[in-house]
Amino acid sequence: MTGSLRVVGLGPGPAAWLTPEASQALALASDIVGYHAYLARLNGAPGQTLHGSDNGDELTRARLALGLAAQGAAVAVVSGGDPGVFAMAAAVFEAIEAGPTAWRLLDVCVLPGVTAMLAAAARLGAPLGNDFCALNLSDNLKPWATIEKRLTHAAQADFVIALYNPASKARPAQVHQAFELLRRHRSGQCVVAFARAVGRPGEELVVTSLEQADPALADMQTLVLIGASSTRCIERPGGKKWVYSPRRLEPAP
Amino acid sequence: MTGSLRVVGLGPGPAAWLTPEASQALALASDIVGYHAYLARLNGAPGQTLHGSDNGDELTRARLALGLAAQGAAVAVVSGGDPGVFAMAAAVFEAIEAGPTAWRLLDVCVLPGVTAMLAAAARLGAPLGNDFCALNLSDNLKPWATIEKRLTHAAQADFVIALYNPASKARPAQVHQAFELLRRHRSGQCVVAFARAVGRPGEELVVTSLEQADPALADMQTLVLIGASSTRCIERPGGKKWVYSPRRLEPAP
Repeated sequence: MTGSLRVVGLGPGPAAWLTPEASQALALASDIVGYHAYLARLNGAPGQTLHGSDNGDELTRARLALGLAAQGAAVAVVSGGDPGVFAMAAAVFEAIEAGPTAWRLLDVCVLPGVTAMLAAAARLGAPLGNDFCALNLSDNLKPWATIEKRLTHAAQADFVIALYNPASKARPAQVHQAFELLRRHRSGQCVVAFARAVGRPGEELVVTSLEQADPALADMQTLVLIGASSTRCIERPGGKKWVYSPRRLEPAP
Repeated sequence: MTGSLRVVGLGPGPAAWLTPEASQALALASDIVGYHAYLARLNGAPGQTLHGSDNGDELTRARLALGLAAQGAAVAVVSGGDPGVFAMAAAVFEAIEAGPTAWRLLDVCVLPGVTAMLAAAARLGAPLGNDFCALNLSDNLKPWATIEKRLTHAAQADFVIALYNPASKARPAQVHQAFELLRRHRSGQCVVAFARAVGRPGEELVVTSLEQADPALADMQTLVLIGASSTRCIERPGGKKWVYSPRRLEPAP
């Protein structure tokens, strides 16, 4: 088989956050497979075929990409952010494992990118400067009980918590439940940030406290960051405050 | 004040993983501050001053960078990977908070990058395809008891765990203690990967199980990944196996 599959992360939005490796893979692809909103970001090269599809159904998209590669095409399948974080890479390997043995011989590479929490953190300051976790709040593919268990441990461990996919039109209530749970385990003074559409039109940052936070601020384009007990704000005369998590932690009292 | 400070992530190594934003900031800087091994990766531009220093003492480096920016210089301070993850960004904000009020007026931006765990994950397949945490195993700046507590919660939450700074010449024993702790909470069949120097000379990947893993494989250049119970390997005829964490999780029995 001479085809290839590159699983490419486009980063959170602007071309300035797309790695040269990803740019090159996109330029060399004969076929690009992805959610149509991601394909709309690309400048297709002459002779390239774009295979756009709706959001969701990552497995169908992965199978399409693998099938094209197995036929000899140079395929790129794209994700926003990093393809390995709650995105297309896992779907591709699920499809390979369940698919024809021949797919295991394919030349498949995952090309890393800047994931949403890194971009959001950079805009805010350095909230991920100490231990953190990343949790996908969607229960489309896992039980809500698993999410609650993980959230509870994350809160008790005093991790900084990055919540991906905090809410959607179909799941408006869960981010409220998540905040209720967090408020039982963390101080009301804990720093919370809503980072919406970072790097894209409509970018908005809200820095608040767990006590004051309105979970309704979170939508499909929002990354929610819950600070650890050590996470701090730096006030700035006339400017937006910075949020950071110091590297040094004192022993618990 | 007309100076500026850009906190720049170089990515794990190769230029192909350096974002265009970071490249541009490095090209425009009058002064670049960083650990000399990172500065050695750069092609300095004419007229640029490189301020190299030994590893450690990030706070001194941050103060140097802030002082130069306050004097009007266009400063870039560099980290490997992403500057917000266990790297220079937190040190810069610590220095600002403790420093002269004037530093709060400076034009400071953090530019995100590809952090080590994303690069390691991409090489392995998609081990971060489900919920995960990132834990800095160094106790230089935090109590070992805090690390043990976080590791225990992470293991109980069934997060995929990325261990940064698992070992150094001064701390050879802690990664062994961490594995002992993990073995008490996780099945011996749990997938473990040692990803050494990903993207740099000497890159090496070892995929094994928690039972079989030799913690002595971890050094300063290694990122250790501990899979969740759901993390799987795909065997490939004649090839390296892929590691991935499926997006779908079944309810606990």
